Amino acid sequence: MKLATMRDGSPDGRLLVVSRDLRSALRADAVVMSLREAMETWDQVEAGLQRLADSLNRGDAPDAFALPLRELGPPMPRSWQWLDASAFHSHGDLMERAFRHAPIEGKLTRPLMYQGGSDDFLGPMDDIPMPDEADGIDFEAEVAVVTDRVPMGTPAGDALRHVRLIMLANDASLRSLAMVEMKTGFGWIQAKPATSFSPVAVTPDELGLAWKDGRVHYPVQVYWNERHFGSPDAGAMGFGFHELIAHAAYSRNLSAGTVLGSGTVSNANYREVGSACIAERRAIEIADEGRAVTPYMRYADRVRIEMFDAHGQSIFGAIDQQIVPAPRSRDN
Amino acid sequence: MKLATMRDGSPDGRLLVVSRDLRSALRADAVVMSLREAMETWDQVEAGLQRLADSLNRGDAPDAFALPLRELGPPMPRSWQWLDASAFHSHGDLMERAFRHAPIEGKLTRPLMYQGGSDDFLGPMDDIPMPDEADGIDFEAEVAVVTDRVPMGTPAGDALRHVRLIMLANDASLRSLAMVEMKTGFGWIQAKPATSFSPVAVTPDELGLAWKDGRVHYPVQVYWNERHFGSPDAGAMGFGFHELIAHAAYSRNLSAGTVLGSGTVSNANYREVGSACIAERRAIEIADEGRAVTPYMRYADRVRIEMFDAHGQSIFGAIDQQIVPAPRSRDN
Repeated sequence: MKLATMRDGSPDGRLLVVSRDLRSALRADAVVMSLREAMETWDQVEAGLQRLADSLNRGDAPDAFALPLRELGPPMPRSWQWLDASAFHSHGDLMERAFRHAPIEGKLTRPLMYQGGSDDFLGPMDDIPMPDEADGIDFEAEVAVVTDRVPMGTPAGDALRHVRLIMLANDASLRSLAMVEMKTGFGWIQAKPATSFSPVAVTPDELGLAWKDGRVHYPVQVYWNERHFGSPDAGAMGFGFHELIAHAAYSRNLSAGTVLGSGTVSNANYREVGSACIAERRAIEIADEGRAVTPYMRYADRVRIEMFDAHGQSIFGAIDQQIVPAPRSRDN
Repeated sequence: MKLATMRDGSPDGRLLVVSRDLRSALRADAVVMSLREAMETWDQVEAGLQRLADSLNRGDAPDAFALPLRELGPPMPRSWQWLDASAFHSHGDLMERAFRHAPIEGKLTRPLMYQGGSDDFLGPMDDIPMPDEADGIDFEAEVAVVTDRVPMGTPAGDALRHVRLIMLANDASLRSLAMVEMKTGFGWIQAKPATSFSPVAVTPDELGLAWKDGRVHYPVQVYWNERHFGSPDAGAMGFGFHELIAHAAYSRNLSAGTVLGSGTVSNANYREVGSACIAERRAIEIADEGRAVTPYMRYADRVRIEMFDAHGQSIFGAIDQQIVPAPRSRDN
């Protein structure tokens, strides 16, 4: 099934069930109010939500209405945990070469992962407020999963059954600050502003055979100011989501609603398929021409991120956002 | 006022108002159910909670009962964000010397901060489950604050009024994994298991003049297996909490209920006052004798962390915990 969240003034918003073709929706609040609550009570609410989805997809739901795209927040406006990996090896290799830092030890056997803010996610069409154009504003197109509760010590072999939902993410980044923070070893605070998510989160069965080995085997389509920027295949993850989950759960329980990201989608044949973030294109330019030519984003720039199935159907709807200056007011 | 959370089977627990001497308590659920909800509605609930606290401290609350220490969870069993700094320069200096890594650039002008798990905090007397004794199990005694909503771009000069509560933390760490993860630049995932908090969180006014310059000017008392381990003064932070908040809010809003930690309390005269984590003592041994003599924690080891005011009154109650093996079951 496909799920979305309509803004209603509350912090968690109100859950909608969405038709497979993303055209129509049903309110799900008779079953459960919000997707965050649904994640915490999944076994009790899944069947009820599935009945709504089935009725909607059969076209016999009398209360169906057109999906109100402009009123959608992220599927979960906030959650308890956002862990983002860097699971595409071609991306890491390019970044290391461009910025001439030594290869990260063990990166082929231990996933790279940081924890980001999960308290204030952005919706698929929300403006992205940024404090300064000079910070090197970038997008990152990613796949993300939402888990139910994962007990500490869950091995990779048991981890995939904890994946309840899949969605797309735009992990906005401030590249000038990223290198400074990375050198401290502490990870990123300032370089990782709020992350944005696709209109719709889907259960793994919606992907059919394209959900395999803990990976989504479709390209992600990335457009920057309406120009095609890249369409690398998300199936090329060096670690599958089961391995990312097991890595994260080594010494902690993961609460229901934990969101895990793949990191910027990237393919080894990046010259043909393009990239899913500007930093990677700049790294390629540095490798090829000795210097980066492509600038980072400016205010009013837009990014669009979407994924289509084999029939050309948009799976998650589009992330389509604009960069704006953060309000200068001290209490916005 | 002083606040605590009694476990009741719900994820957020039930709020108690606690007397200044930590002996008695009142249920606060007529005002607000949980401390997490109180943080999100502080302006509406503060006066009601204060009336309960006043009545309790005057001794005329008919519904008062003995504080049920064993039933307390952490003041917030879960929250939206946990940001932990390393704000004591003497600690960083010692660690750099011992582990012979190059000084972190800009560390005296930019706070060091990582984001940790906030979905599964531990209570003051909870066992700490750890996957492997060989991981270098350590405690870290810290001061932490809880903020209301801090808008992006809030400057340090405006930040202190967002501090609603203060508490103690035990930021348990796995040192063998910490160095591996730090070298990646991504921060810590496996090396930072669930963080524990003191029985009671207090409003800043409870500290009187000891809350000054965004710092708590009292020593933290640390005991390992009943032996005194250190009592460094928490007032020696190289950055105050207002600077930590402004740093964190540069490119993100901080939701109400955000918890910020000071990092391991540490003083430059560590030879006299001792340390607040084992890694620091080992670093001193390496500096003095060329090798670390003190081992890390073993299963069944205990740590006790407490802070007393000028009259010898425990301010937050004691964190008093035991290290235990994590359950091997795959679904604990």
